[in-house]
Amino acid sequence: MTSSEKNSAQASDWLSQVSWNDQGLVAVIAQEADTGDVLMMAWMNKESLQLTLEKGEAVYWSRSRKKIWHKGEESGHVQVVKSIHLDCDGDTILIKVDQKDRIACHTGAHSCFFLDLEVTPDGPVWKK
Amino acid sequence: MTSSEKNSAQASDWLSQVSWNDQGLVAVIAQEADTGDVLMMAWMNKESLQLTLEKGEAVYWSRSRKKIWHKGEESGHVQVVKSIHLDCDGDTILIKVDQKDRIACHTGAHSCFFLDLEVTPDGPVWKK
Repeated sequence: MTSSEKNSAQASDWLSQVSWNDQGLVAVIAQEADTGDVLMMAWMNKESLQLTLEKGEAVYWSRSRKKIWHKGEESGHVQVVKSIHLDCDGDTILIKVDQKDRIACHTGAHSCFFLDLEVTPDGPVWKK
Repeated sequence: MTSSEKNSAQASDWLSQVSWNDQGLVAVIAQEADTGDVLMMAWMNKESLQLTLEKGEAVYWSRSRKKIWHKGEESGHVQVVKSIHLDCDGDTILIKVDQKDRIACHTGAHSCFFLDLEVTPDGPVWKK
């Protein structure tokens, strides 16, 4: 193996160490770097994870539109990636990001997790 | 509808508002309440989400063992649930927890996300 072949093999190792599911996807949690707020959960395929590293901005795989989704390409609410972490069994990635305009959700909310479970006399209710 | 029937219908509403996937599961992110650290990602089915609320401790669905998994029942590393949040499209839940012994990972690590992507001269590498 030549040195450049070796580099090329090593360069793709990090991608093969991810446990892609049967649809070739890995779950990705986006956490705001400075506040620690969990912003959203989405999915990446191999190409989008590679693009995320190259661009330094979160690039997901849209399961509904079945295409690469550079988050914020239309809204401007891009996520600048500060660090990328893999979990113990390789099937979930955590990215720490600077969220442009502090808006991660397509509803305009800061985080997608804006429904809070409250236990009321009538039972549990999801409240904004 | 009698008052108790109404209460019962409302009581199950919160469960039907979750977008269960085709395996009847929802993705769950566990975040440490006081530090903001993202600890792990796992799955719940309807029964385990209900048990989580009842017990006040995280109860997941183990996809590998195909059974209800009361986290920490053997290791003692239970997660006391402080709050439960649903995302905008209902297919991911965020729970904020007090992690007993500060150990969430089966490897003994605080968080499951202990592999950090580092870009080296030989390419990107996941490092502990």
